[in-house]
Amino acid sequence: MAPEAVTFSEVVEAEGHLIDSQLLKAIFDKVIERSAAFEVQHFTIGRTNDEYSRLTLRVSAATPPALEALLEELMPLGCHPVAEQDALIRPADSDGCVADDFYSTTNQRTHVRVEGRWLEVERQRMDAVVVVESDRVVCRKLRDVRTGDRVVCGLEGIRVTPEFRDRARPDFGFMSNEVSSERRVEASVVRIAAMMRDTKARGGRIAFVAGPVVVHTGGAPYFVDLIRRGYVDILLAGNALAVHDAELALFGTSLGVDLEAGAPVRGGHRHHMRAINAINRAGGIRPAVDAGVLTSGVMVECVRANVEYLLAGSIRDDGPLVDTIADIVEAQNRYGDALATAGMVIILSTMLHGIGVGNMLPAWVPVVCVDINPAVVTKLADRGSSQTLGIVTDVGLFLHQLARRLEE
Amino acid sequence: MAPEAVTFSEVVEAEGHLIDSQLLKAIFDKVIERSAAFEVQHFTIGRTNDEYSRLTLRVSAATPPALEALLEELMPLGCHPVAEQDALIRPADSDGCVADDFYSTTNQRTHVRVEGRWLEVERQRMDAVVVVESDRVVCRKLRDVRTGDRVVCGLEGIRVTPEFRDRARPDFGFMSNEVSSERRVEASVVRIAAMMRDTKARGGRIAFVAGPVVVHTGGAPYFVDLIRRGYVDILLAGNALAVHDAELALFGTSLGVDLEAGAPVRGGHRHHMRAINAINRAGGIRPAVDAGVLTSGVMVECVRANVEYLLAGSIRDDGPLVDTIADIVEAQNRYGDALATAGMVIILSTMLHGIGVGNMLPAWVPVVCVDINPAVVTKLADRGSSQTLGIVTDVGLFLHQLARRLEE
Amino acid sequence: MAPEAVTFSEVVEAEGHLIDSQLLKAIFDKVIERSAAFEVQHFTIGRTNDEYSRLTLRVSAATPPALEALLEELMPLGCHPVAEQDALIRPADSDGCVADDFYSTTNQRTHVRVEGRWLEVERQRMDAVVVVESDRVVCRKLRDVRTGDRVVCGLEGIRVTPEFRDRARPDFGFMSNEVSSERRVEASVVRIAAMMRDTKARGGRIAFVAGPVVVHTGGAPYFVDLIRRGYVDILLAGNALAVHDAELALFGTSLGVDLEAGAPVRGGHRHHMRAINAINRAGGIRPAVDAGVLTSGVMVECVRANVEYLLAGSIRDDGPLVDTIADIVEAQNRYGDALATAGMVIILSTMLHGIGVGNMLPAWVPVVCVDINPAVVTKLADRGSSQTLGIVTDVGLFLHQLARRLEE
Amino acid sequence: MAPEAVTFSEVVEAEGHLIDSQLLKAIFDKVIERSAAFEVQHFTIGRTNDEYSRLTLRVSAATPPALEALLEELMPLGCHPVAEQDALIRPADSDGCVADDFYSTTNQRTHVRVEGRWLEVERQRMDAVVVVESDRVVCRKLRDVRTGDRVVCGLEGIRVTPEFRDRARPDFGFMSNEVSSERRVEASVVRIAAMMRDTKARGGRIAFVAGPVVVHTGGAPYFVDLIRRGYVDILLAGNALAVHDAELALFGTSLGVDLEAGAPVRGGHRHHMRAINAINRAGGIRPAVDAGVLTSGVMVECVRANVEYLLAGSIRDDGPLVDTIADIVEAQNRYGDALATAGMVIILSTMLHGIGVGNMLPAWVPVVCVDINPAVVTKLADRGSSQTLGIVTDVGLFLHQLARRLEE
Repeated sequence: MAPEAVTFSEVVEAEGHLIDSQLLKAIFDKVIERSAAFEVQHFTIGRTNDEYSRLTLRVSAATPPALEALLEELMPLGCHPVAEQDALIRPADSDGCVADDFYSTTNQRTHVRVEGRWLEVERQRMDAVVVVESDRVVCRKLRDVRTGDRVVCGLEGIRVTPEFRDRARPDFGFMSNEVSSERRVEASVVRIAAMMRDTKARGGRIAFVAGPVVVHTGGAPYFVDLIRRGYVDILLAGNALAVHDAELALFGTSLGVDLEAGAPVRGGHRHHMRAINAINRAGGIRPAVDAGVLTSGVMVECVRANVEYLLAGSIRDDGPLVDTIADIVEAQNRYGDALATAGMVIILSTMLHGIGVGNMLPAWVPVVCVDINPAVVTKLADRGSSQTLGIVTDVGLFLHQLARRLEE
Repeated sequence: MAPEAVTFSEVVEAEGHLIDSQLLKAIFDKVIERSAAFEVQHFTIGRTNDEYSRLTLRVSAATPPALEALLEELMPLGCHPVAEQDALIRPADSDGCVADDFYSTTNQRTHVRVEGRWLEVERQRMDAVVVVESDRVVCRKLRDVRTGDRVVCGLEGIRVTPEFRDRARPDFGFMSNEVSSERRVEASVVRIAAMMRDTKARGGRIAFVAGPVVVHTGGAPYFVDLIRRGYVDILLAGNALAVHDAELALFGTSLGVDLEAGAPVRGGHRHHMRAINAINRAGGIRPAVDAGVLTSGVMVECVRANVEYLLAGSIRDDGPLVDTIADIVEAQNRYGDALATAGMVIILSTMLHGIGVGNMLPAWVPVVCVDINPAVVTKLADRGSSQTLGIVTDVGLFLHQLARRLEE
Repeated sequence: MAPEAVTFSEVVEAEGHLIDSQLLKAIFDKVIERSAAFEVQHFTIGRTNDEYSRLTLRVSAATPPALEALLEELMPLGCHPVAEQDALIRPADSDGCVADDFYSTTNQRTHVRVEGRWLEVERQRMDAVVVVESDRVVCRKLRDVRTGDRVVCGLEGIRVTPEFRDRARPDFGFMSNEVSSERRVEASVVRIAAMMRDTKARGGRIAFVAGPVVVHTGGAPYFVDLIRRGYVDILLAGNALAVHDAELALFGTSLGVDLEAGAPVRGGHRHHMRAINAINRAGGIRPAVDAGVLTSGVMVECVRANVEYLLAGSIRDDGPLVDTIADIVEAQNRYGDALATAGMVIILSTMLHGIGVGNMLPAWVPVVCVDINPAVVTKLADRGSSQTLGIVTDVGLFLHQLARRLEE
Repeated sequence: MAPEAVTFSEVVEAEGHLIDSQLLKAIFDKVIERSAAFEVQHFTIGRTNDEYSRLTLRVSAATPPALEALLEELMPLGCHPVAEQDALIRPADSDGCVADDFYSTTNQRTHVRVEGRWLEVERQRMDAVVVVESDRVVCRKLRDVRTGDRVVCGLEGIRVTPEFRDRARPDFGFMSNEVSSERRVEASVVRIAAMMRDTKARGGRIAFVAGPVVVHTGGAPYFVDLIRRGYVDILLAGNALAVHDAELALFGTSLGVDLEAGAPVRGGHRHHMRAINAINRAGGIRPAVDAGVLTSGVMVECVRANVEYLLAGSIRDDGPLVDTIADIVEAQNRYGDALATAGMVIILSTMLHGIGVGNMLPAWVPVVCVDINPAVVTKLADRGSSQTLGIVTDVGLFLHQLARRLEE
């Protein structure tokens, strides 16, 4: 199984908190996985918690393409060739299409070398291409590439700086990707409340991504409370949240369940459709609020507090409301623009929108994900950010606790 | 708690397999839930398995609106006033909006009385309104209503015939809404294979609704087998299924996992994005197949076998492929048209598209739902159809078993 | 498939709330499942909510054994032969063994006819045999049968009265077997608090069955609160609850997690084992409390408030504590004795003990089951009691809400 | 937050695959978590995959107890003081009780220094104490300690060698603790079959830990196949597996479900209890096989193939069978003895017995855990072994695939 006569090799360097962030291990693993070999030429360990570690590593593979593939995979781990070169740039040959060897981004901080200068990539997100525009380099989705755009290709002249776990942060050891339902949620709520206050104190914006379960589980009044206290700057949701919220406001039910009584199914379907009819007849949520059709609930509070809200359409929507963005490409673009200013993101019981949002975020924005289903939390926490906190709990009770903690 | 001096009452009738289908119980429960009272005026039980039961019931409530609300809820259970009247019809006052007392449909078979004649509602589905067009009555989504459309309102002149569980059917006792992971799946596969053969023998079309998990779990080759044997007439999916399928065809991986080796993460992200770039450069799936870019996999087989496939967009899509329908209103309309001809629907590991499809189906189309997550199966099975079969199992292994059974 | 020349038949009767309790449907289903036939000879429906329904039914099967098997299955649904006979009694031939045609009990109220008199079975529970002792008939576990015990066999002279859903109860419509995680838990808490107050007001005892998750999720202080207010009469648990409770009391951790900080793993293992060593050295929980070794927590409160607590051993126990009952036959016997006096049972996050307890209860004791895993709740709710309420939520937060509600 | 004037320090050493096994990171994390400080005095990295790394580290804490606590937690990570001393030994003061500073074991390979010699601990398992017996040191459960036993205390003279992930092993990269339901199970089956063949080729014994779901899901005939082919040396289960297996053999049902037809509930309860009565009357499983009462199924095959089987009792048992070990302390002891010879362990759908077994195993025995519930797999995979493989799939279909693969 061991490679016998490996002949093609390259020397790469990496620096940073290589051990804490498990990068060193990941680098070695990747080499072995690829049936390649490594030799550590130089390694200095950070002698204290604050010092960086530095690695110089020779990697060898059986063929040039195998070596190329390996180098490509080491790049997101922070390895870059010792010899510096400018990035290779190829113009896009047609709208939405790029050369086959295009560089596909991760969500980690990235620099590209253009004419001898290292430029930081703007609007960092995963699964994008990097386009060079005069003095700037920016992430762009494939579909937004236009003929002639100067697209970064190959692997030279690209440096990725993985987000390090920072032991000095107050949330160190707390913000891990571990997920468990057998935890004391009240301890997590204390931390999240502190993070929210910190974010606001630093002038950051907080984005919530919320599913209709917020309403079903009785969390709406507590979420309204968060809006009133100024902790919600952006609300990213789908059609269903707004419809269920309106149904609750107009009829006291959520999908036909009376939330006070907890009793199942009271004229369910009709309330749902009537709520849509009432909002749409008014011309949408904002006009419905202005006209006094809708007088309470999450959406009313968003209108009053000038929270930026975006409802993205999906194949399972009823209606939809006229506010709902039916075109998902437009919805992605507008979500992306809103998130560009977010300093913290909290995802409440929505796998669909949560994954959508996760794809758009750079690795350094902290994300909290709350869901009663551990599979959802795990899926969202696995998206490569070192700053994700997954909490498996009841969303309604969680919001109750969070609202109480933030009123103190 | 008991109503003291109830004074407003109405007599309703119902007939059918009232006991087997639990309708009698549901009717009584609903009356009590509403704090109303009932008196059975007449009841004849079907003396054998084949005979219908017949009920005449007086229901009484404290106020006229309470009585009205109760009657509204009894209607989907098959109760209709003894005295026959024509349905109330009101013209829509503007596009997409109807009178507040509009009748919101269930997915059960429905008749409307127009000028003394009972007409069966066409394109039956839930959460629609009923529009009268000269000699026909049809379901229409709220958003498709145009000013002046003649919309059925109120409760008079409407009869709902709930789907009865038919003990004579070979699948009686099997097609229940029960969901369990602790069952022998091989027994279920035998039944489903028989249902599929029956459906084809009767000239029916089989629609599959499939998520990308079909590819991750190694089910693609078995699904291809089903297509080749003619058991897949319609494929309803999202962008992800096609992208993962193409990634597997082009690179042998699914989200970067080598499906042969089962080893995690080999150049994952890039394969995914490269597959999208390759298909889109070719101009879409069909051109990519024609050009020999894509030579194997589920989508290739669909193109070759002329399977009607529809990819609906969602907020979490990468790309998307040019084939993906970005506008969800259009996607819903095209899904709905395709399903209008389906005699059987099989949902494989996709809650999003599964719920979308469930909303579009009349109650009498049998649905099989397979997912490893019992919560998904329960959610899909709870949508009011008496003909849903939920199976909690591994989708890849399920398809393997099903393909083997259908080759016999 | 239809039976052609059925010749063996019997006439049975049933009475009660046959429709509400779905018994009528279940009876008909059972006949069809068995490939037998039925003819309704007489049926009167309860004309109002308070009246019973009455059924006389002729059932026919192809062979005498098939008829016998069918009658056996109809019995738990409340059907009994029109002709009354004494029950057949056979002496047990050896310890722990009975005749092959022994009657195996359900958890429903049962009467047995002995020398012309109908006697109610005592200590009703499922999966027992019925032993006749002079003037009494009692449930006995197979293993407790002794040679010569007079055991009820066959089907004659046995009447089962299924628990009816009582629409007059305040909890009607609430105590269903439906399970959902997408519900407002606060509404359920209000009802459960009311049921607990009712139970105490009627002089009933409340039994809690609790897993260690109560401690992990931070529920212990709230549970202590319930004990202090007198809402816990019996605590049925395993070794783990007491060990985790002691670990928290002695070291402030639960399985090594600091519950205040929420931080993972701080000297975990050792705390766990040291807690066991400390309690066992003192001679057990009560001596440890007396000696001041253990001064806070759930177990301390139980000792102080004279709550009857029983810790049943299991294969995964650490230690175990000397209080833990290592012999599971003894543990079952003592659990059973304690439950004989329980008027309400609340199961908190323990499938193992929850199922054990469910097996021991008659159908008329209301059971509340709380777990964050819907599969556990479904499994416990499916055990045949019409009085089970399943709640899918976070146990720590649930106890917080419940304690607050009960202090009002 | 940083400690200001730390004054108490100690120098520790560690060596091995410190990076691959994430030990270096874990060591640094632990120091920071404890609000202590570290300084790397010396670190040499393994220059190739085969070389060990070596670390010399000074750790400092604010107080002597804080330093002691930190050293205690670094020990399971392979750190040991530079200065060598004999272990501290204290005699147990009473049966089942030891000194408060006793050393509580992990499941990692451990050596203890006695009179200048390093002795390897025998019967390594977690949560035990170490007893010195003339020339040997052995793990002993607390409850088995007798007055006067010489128990290892404190931290001196103890060395833990964490199991290293071995990149040279064929299963490297495969045996990780990652858990996912969205994987191709067939690839995992190929690996597991290879591991089983390897284990047998090396003369190792394979232990299966199996729940009754093996029977419910139709896996019994495939499991029988594995027994016949010699792949099952030890079967660890509970009462339920044997009872369900016997019910299937005697009546063709599992908990009353006909496994051929897949139809629910056919005389369920009685079959279950009758099976117990039949086996117990015969005097147990082996006599029942000898007497021809039981002629097929998993237990019959175990008897015929001389598989060592142990049934551990639990609080939810029906019966139990006379074979079931009612005393859980005895059951743990006998499980432990059987596992002492196991070279590989496969856990099939039983959290209870799976956790029990996990507690008994040293870290170097590879464990495969199969369950349809990801929470169970995660829980079992989290128990600190680096050699656990979790597979989320349908157990019946998994056994089908495994049996097919092993017949090739």
